[in-house]
Amino acid sequence: MTDMELGSSDGALSDAAEGPPSPLDADPAYRVAVVDLLGGLAYSELSAFERLTEDATTAPTLQDKVALAAMAVREFGHFERLRDRLLELGADPFAAMEPFHAPVDAFHAHTAPSDWFESLIKAYVGDGLAADFYREIAAYLDAATRDLILTTLDNTGQSEFVVDRVRRAIEADPKIAGRLALWGRRLMGEALSQAQRVAAERNALTALLVGGVDRPGMDLAAIARMFGRLAETHTARMSTLGLRA
Amino acid sequence: MTDMELGSSDGALSDAAEGPPSPLDADPAYRVAVVDLLGGLAYSELSAFERLTEDATTAPTLQDKVALAAMAVREFGHFERLRDRLLELGADPFAAMEPFHAPVDAFHAHTAPSDWFESLIKAYVGDGLAADFYREIAAYLDAATRDLILTTLDNTGQSEFVVDRVRRAIEADPKIAGRLALWGRRLMGEALSQAQRVAAERNALTALLVGGVDRPGMDLAAIARMFGRLAETHTARMSTLGLRA
Repeated sequence: MTDMELGSSDGALSDAAEGPPSPLDADPAYRVAVVDLLGGLAYSELSAFERLTEDATTAPTLQDKVALAAMAVREFGHFERLRDRLLELGADPFAAMEPFHAPVDAFHAHTAPSDWFESLIKAYVGDGLAADFYREIAAYLDAATRDLILTTLDNTGQSEFVVDRVRRAIEADPKIAGRLALWGRRLMGEALSQAQRVAAERNALTALLVGGVDRPGMDLAAIARMFGRLAETHTARMSTLGLRA
Repeated sequence: MTDMELGSSDGALSDAAEGPPSPLDADPAYRVAVVDLLGGLAYSELSAFERLTEDATTAPTLQDKVALAAMAVREFGHFERLRDRLLELGADPFAAMEPFHAPVDAFHAHTAPSDWFESLIKAYVGDGLAADFYREIAAYLDAATRDLILTTLDNTGQSEFVVDRVRRAIEADPKIAGRLALWGRRLMGEALSQAQRVAAERNALTALLVGGVDRPGMDLAAIARMFGRLAETHTARMSTLGLRA
């Protein structure tokens, strides 16, 4: 074989698939787990869109309504990316989302905001928690799925208005801080409780985090540390709002 | 003056503003009218977003819900463009939208869909009417505003699913066609009635269509012809749905 032939053969290979073969092709169990993960995230984003648009109807001003609607529309954009990726993988997005209806709907049923500030905090805390979780799991995914997850996070940071509104409300009426801090704890508690339910029911998904024979994963201690980090950033977010977590 | 000086002077001019000065700078009344127009369109798009997301909650399947939500999200994108253009023009978008709250809200109050198919038809007819109206008025606007209006139309055509759903529903139960045809007439009637109200109340906006001393516009006959064309394309749309207008 000449150098030239080697070169052209390399070129053809890297056109078809850069680097080692993706576990999406090589490992059917991994593929099932990724479809499960993307389905769960897609339904979470779609539900976030629905709840935020519903919450936006209680906005005190049209400006506030537009700001919350913009957050909702961003979540819908995330949903569309995740759905399109599921289609690329040959999966039915609606079938992939189906197992997550119950836990996600339960989360929302248990955290229906009773006023505008509870809506704002739910939007902010939910968006933040989702972003943290995306970042945590990205490391355990193949390159293509990881890139999707990380670019889905790209357009965050539109929620400064939430911080502004909540801090101003607390300044104007400091006694609401206690109730809103409790609300933040309830949001985190419900999120963890539904996450546990998913972990118990979706073996493929759990296996994804725990890893495989030739794929690194988290042991139980690592998973506990991940939850610790999620709790820490949640506390930091609550404190940005002027609330104790 | 040398040719070279002339050339460089031309170059500088075309950097600052291509072609003749925009009536946005030269004609304060025109500017007021454009701000009024963009404000009215922006509030219409924002309201369309709100109503469509509300209507999406009654979708019979998650697939249908996503399809209607996608139409809603597109309207929000239109709203954002119009709002950003108002900001560029130095106008307060919320102040510009304010005079249109009453007619647009009245339109929606008088056309609250009583079921999923009425929602679908309202989405389709409303989107189509808006697009037709945008196209009609674009010719009377300065180049920058016209480009904005026309690119706002660019991403239409996501509403084929409406045609599919409505046609299938009529096939399955032909007797609903009469009620839905009446519904289409009511939508058009309410739209015209609110448009008349806006025309009567917003002199600057009416003056925009009628033209000025050095700006071509429509005479009454031309305005009547425009409404005739809007009615024709409405009829064509209803017929695409399998309904008589």
